[in-house]
Amino acid sequence: MIVYFNGRYMEKSEVRIDPEDRGFMLADGTYEFVRCYRGKPFRIREHLRRFANSLAQIRLAPPAGVDFEDVASELIRRNGMEEAETALYLQMTRGAAPRKHPFPDPPVRPTVYAALVPVTPPEDKWRNGVSAITVPDTRWGHCDIKSIGLLPNVLAAQRAAEAGAEEAIFIRDGAVTEGTHTNVAAVFDGAVETHPTGTAILDGITRDVVRECCSDEGIPFIEEPVTEPRFRNADEIFIMGSSTELMPVVVLDGRPVGNGLPGPVVRRLQSAFRRKTAG
Amino acid sequence: MIVYFNGRYMEKSEVRIDPEDRGFMLADGTYEFVRCYRGKPFRIREHLRRFANSLAQIRLAPPAGVDFEDVASELIRRNGMEEAETALYLQMTRGAAPRKHPFPDPPVRPTVYAALVPVTPPEDKWRNGVSAITVPDTRWGHCDIKSIGLLPNVLAAQRAAEAGAEEAIFIRDGAVTEGTHTNVAAVFDGAVETHPTGTAILDGITRDVVRECCSDEGIPFIEEPVTEPRFRNADEIFIMGSSTELMPVVVLDGRPVGNGLPGPVVRRLQSAFRRKTAG
Repeated sequence: MIVYFNGRYMEKSEVRIDPEDRGFMLADGTYEFVRCYRGKPFRIREHLRRFANSLAQIRLAPPAGVDFEDVASELIRRNGMEEAETALYLQMTRGAAPRKHPFPDPPVRPTVYAALVPVTPPEDKWRNGVSAITVPDTRWGHCDIKSIGLLPNVLAAQRAAEAGAEEAIFIRDGAVTEGTHTNVAAVFDGAVETHPTGTAILDGITRDVVRECCSDEGIPFIEEPVTEPRFRNADEIFIMGSSTELMPVVVLDGRPVGNGLPGPVVRRLQSAFRRKTAG
Repeated sequence: MIVYFNGRYMEKSEVRIDPEDRGFMLADGTYEFVRCYRGKPFRIREHLRRFANSLAQIRLAPPAGVDFEDVASELIRRNGMEEAETALYLQMTRGAAPRKHPFPDPPVRPTVYAALVPVTPPEDKWRNGVSAITVPDTRWGHCDIKSIGLLPNVLAAQRAAEAGAEEAIFIRDGAVTEGTHTNVAAVFDGAVETHPTGTAILDGITRDVVRECCSDEGIPFIEEPVTEPRFRNADEIFIMGSSTELMPVVVLDGRPVGNGLPGPVVRRLQSAFRRKTAG
């Protein structure tokens, strides 16, 4: 597998992250994950805009002269992944320097890593739905930054895995925020409701596409926090993400959601979404 | 510089962290920092007990058959640091595996890294005190885990550095919790007050030693949250940490603390602390 590392293409096994990299010691970095369909990264400009946003929020300048659209194309070409189910993983950290909390002064070269990762489309889960659990949202106050500081997400996702669930859904102040690696929506009387953007959730690209799909389909898309008791009585629940796409949640904390089957709204949105990715 | 990496001693430049290490991509790891005095790690058993605690909280088993006291001695010997001002940095992550949030299943070999880092005793700051700023505590809900997910600390410490301050002190729910890399105490009428342990702060080893010093000196040590308005009217403020030791804060957010000079209580505690590290 050929990857991109600090301006060069090389075998992944040749990449050496310094132990003093601020990504390894301080979680001082951000990342993106871009699904590719038939060799083309989907909504990559939106991903790169969000990446620039995360970088700005942690005050890390984007690397000069790197066009990540080109990097994506080059990785796809060099690895012969034009027809493969794959995704681009992209990460940037503040670089390697003797460990201390403030930024290195003078600044050091940031670390930039990009690689293609295999994707297995979860057809069965899209069709039949998955289960999810709820967990307290103990994450920090800037979930809008797509930071690599993901330990709370890791611990919650592991709880989900051990419960045989696909996702752990965070509850903060009595309302649903999002999942460990997905945004979350509920359906009530034919309308989609999901947490508004802000500092409590990641401004999901798939979430944006779902908003477009709702608009196309004439489905109301309401950005309001859904309280936990309402959430448990939703007609439908679904999770959204770049590799997750739209996945019905049919069991929540062991109890059926609605009638326990994927509902008509998520079905319509899945079809609408599929048309966009086929475009 | 010889470091320890996954069971072996090697030049630091030879250490290769895999880009898929869960420390680099997910902040899925913990660390410790142990000050060494005259070639002897100070309170290393307490540090290792806390390390074991952090590992247990993130559900990572300690590496079998590794005695970090021996690793510390060996690093000091191999690097000829018996007389040097130094500290042991120790980090463990859940290892390298294709990126996904739940733990790798089956588990992979964790990554263990340990190195000596140079320490320059900040004599001038101990003597004359430093300034600090206050910042909102937006960190996650498990600050008792000494995790490598330190981005909020990094951003706050950078704000402090840009304000010419030594430390940024977190305020949560109207009370002082701790600093980005220190615990914080205030003095009122001769008594030391500091946030109780729990999930809001790290259970500091230096904080424990200060508690002992208070006991030795007959100084009351009160573990209660100090509200922000009280904090701003403290007679004295000081920060505590393994390399910070006890450092008077004489300016807070640009205003003098007490009379703007290191106070008598922190002076006595500094002396008492110095006697312990000389032991």
